[in-house]
Amino acid sequence: MTKLKNDTFLRALLRQPVEYTPIWVMRQAGRYLSEYNQTRARAGNFLALCKNPDFATEVTMQPLARFSLDAAILFSDILTIPDAMGLGLYFSEGEGPRFERPLREEKEIRDLTVPDPDTHLRYVMDAVSQIRKTLDNQVPLIGFSGSPFTLACYMVEGRGSSDFRQIKTMLYQRPDLLHHILDINAQAVTTYLNAQIESGAQAVMIFDTWGGALSHSAYPEFSLRYMQQILAGLKREYNGARIPSVVFTKGGGLWLEQIANSGCDAIGLDWTIDIGEARRRVGDKVALQGNLDPSVLFASAEVITAEVEKILASYGDGNGHVFNLGHGISQFTPPESVATLVDAVHAISRKYHE
Amino acid sequence: MTKLKNDTFLRALLRQPVEYTPIWVMRQAGRYLSEYNQTRARAGNFLALCKNPDFATEVTMQPLARFSLDAAILFSDILTIPDAMGLGLYFSEGEGPRFERPLREEKEIRDLTVPDPDTHLRYVMDAVSQIRKTLDNQVPLIGFSGSPFTLACYMVEGRGSSDFRQIKTMLYQRPDLLHHILDINAQAVTTYLNAQIESGAQAVMIFDTWGGALSHSAYPEFSLRYMQQILAGLKREYNGARIPSVVFTKGGGLWLEQIANSGCDAIGLDWTIDIGEARRRVGDKVALQGNLDPSVLFASAEVITAEVEKILASYGDGNGHVFNLGHGISQFTPPESVATLVDAVHAISRKYHE
Repeated sequence: MTKLKNDTFLRALLRQPVEYTPIWVMRQAGRYLSEYNQTRARAGNFLALCKNPDFATEVTMQPLARFSLDAAILFSDILTIPDAMGLGLYFSEGEGPRFERPLREEKEIRDLTVPDPDTHLRYVMDAVSQIRKTLDNQVPLIGFSGSPFTLACYMVEGRGSSDFRQIKTMLYQRPDLLHHILDINAQAVTTYLNAQIESGAQAVMIFDTWGGALSHSAYPEFSLRYMQQILAGLKREYNGARIPSVVFTKGGGLWLEQIANSGCDAIGLDWTIDIGEARRRVGDKVALQGNLDPSVLFASAEVITAEVEKILASYGDGNGHVFNLGHGISQFTPPESVATLVDAVHAISRKYHE
Repeated sequence: MTKLKNDTFLRALLRQPVEYTPIWVMRQAGRYLSEYNQTRARAGNFLALCKNPDFATEVTMQPLARFSLDAAILFSDILTIPDAMGLGLYFSEGEGPRFERPLREEKEIRDLTVPDPDTHLRYVMDAVSQIRKTLDNQVPLIGFSGSPFTLACYMVEGRGSSDFRQIKTMLYQRPDLLHHILDINAQAVTTYLNAQIESGAQAVMIFDTWGGALSHSAYPEFSLRYMQQILAGLKREYNGARIPSVVFTKGGGLWLEQIANSGCDAIGLDWTIDIGEARRRVGDKVALQGNLDPSVLFASAEVITAEVEKILASYGDGNGHVFNLGHGISQFTPPESVATLVDAVHAISRKYHE
């Protein structure tokens, strides 16, 4: 059993009483911090940073030294799984992630296998263990993965896409092939997240970054269903502790009721939905995580505080809220804005938990 | 009074009885048609195509010669207004639209004026008149504009953006400045659309391409409010004919009730919402236009037909539906797919209008 000094984040995800609304920030270890850029320069590049547990631990800890955040999140890439499957992840400067060998032929798809987390993904598990040890039970550690559909987007397109032409052509013309990829991905993510839990992750999050590009009828069939499959296979308890899970489909605000029934403990929200309305729609089924527009952090402390107050007031009294941005923090964010944000959430939220 | 040979589209927008569900396709005159590419090559470039009424008429008519579409839409760019304001619109190959002089200084913003449609935008009005004449009352002609917020995105960012950093910084830090731009834009769009109506446009559509990037609380204040201002100032009748209006906020599915109260006759829907659910939410307040995922057109005729059937069945019996894609057609679409789509909508929909 762990004795966390601050378990507010885990309690909020399980909708248990807390004294204040906990907060962490998506991509909190990142380019807006000068110390991150220094470590990255020492590592050589982003992928080297992810693949070296010492560097991954160092950057995971950096935002915690600056801000009173209520959780740490494993520093890693969402595309580690397809990389371990042999697709050859690389980053071309200023272009985002790419794969050397995107999936184009049916044979390549049929040959996909679930990577063993103890070999090709060992570096991730080592990072999790080392971060957990370094954290020394200060705050909980979040493990994570991309969703099966989001991984498949990169695996089929070979890179980020604005129209998802390749994968959607497959979805409509060869759904059997896409279902095969998604099933392998779901097995791989389940194994991967369970290995993270065994290595020390105390909560897990599935990032469905591209699920919102699907039609209302394709989303349950090609994205949500496979996240459900993962959630059904995840360890819900480890070493006597409940391991809460969060599902975040960016642009999924229309589908909250379905997501709430997926078996997750909490739903991540982007900034397009009123969190109070989201709470009414999901009832007491799940907790909610979100949902400040990251661009608010470009504004003054007064504006940040006012926008924080709006979200807290909309959520209202009671438990089940983890504060976060509605998407990853921008590299152009002044770090002082994050300090303002964290302190505002902690201070203002107390009145909603009396 | 016009004697349209086919006024199905206008009747559907006004929720009047029709024999079948009318269809047109966003960006129906475009790069997926070889004849369009030929005309564009003759014109030299995209902007020259827009600015020459002969070429604009030619490409507007091209899809009508191929497919039994129920409406034509003015061929133009959504950024004609800021270009007429002096910001210097240009296109760099493969990069999308850009402005030479984006709005950065307060003085530039305070100096903005509403362009006179009879001078700097004369070429648009000439295109509308010429297209109307060439159409010879075969089907109605749709006029259009970008929304005030969508225009402002390009005016402030100077180009397309994935994070809208400049305009959102202004929104949160200097809302007064952004409101000033939006008010000028709303006046300009009102004047512009009314001039299109006087030149022959028989319906108008406002494209709010980027409104969906706003937070739920910023959307009504910075996008919808200014579309309402336009709708309140539009000619609702011209030459004895009702001029219906359509508002399309991409990614606006969570805000349909508010959009339905904006004064528009119809709402454009992207593919993330079930059109039957959208119909239940807006009641009989407005018609709905949409909402096939454009990627379906990469699939076989059988798949296209099945997806058309799903949307028609979800909308169900009765009036008030104009079929369309949920976004502009992709340049990679096989034209045969559009023929399949149009014919499927016409054939299958009859049973819902008996």
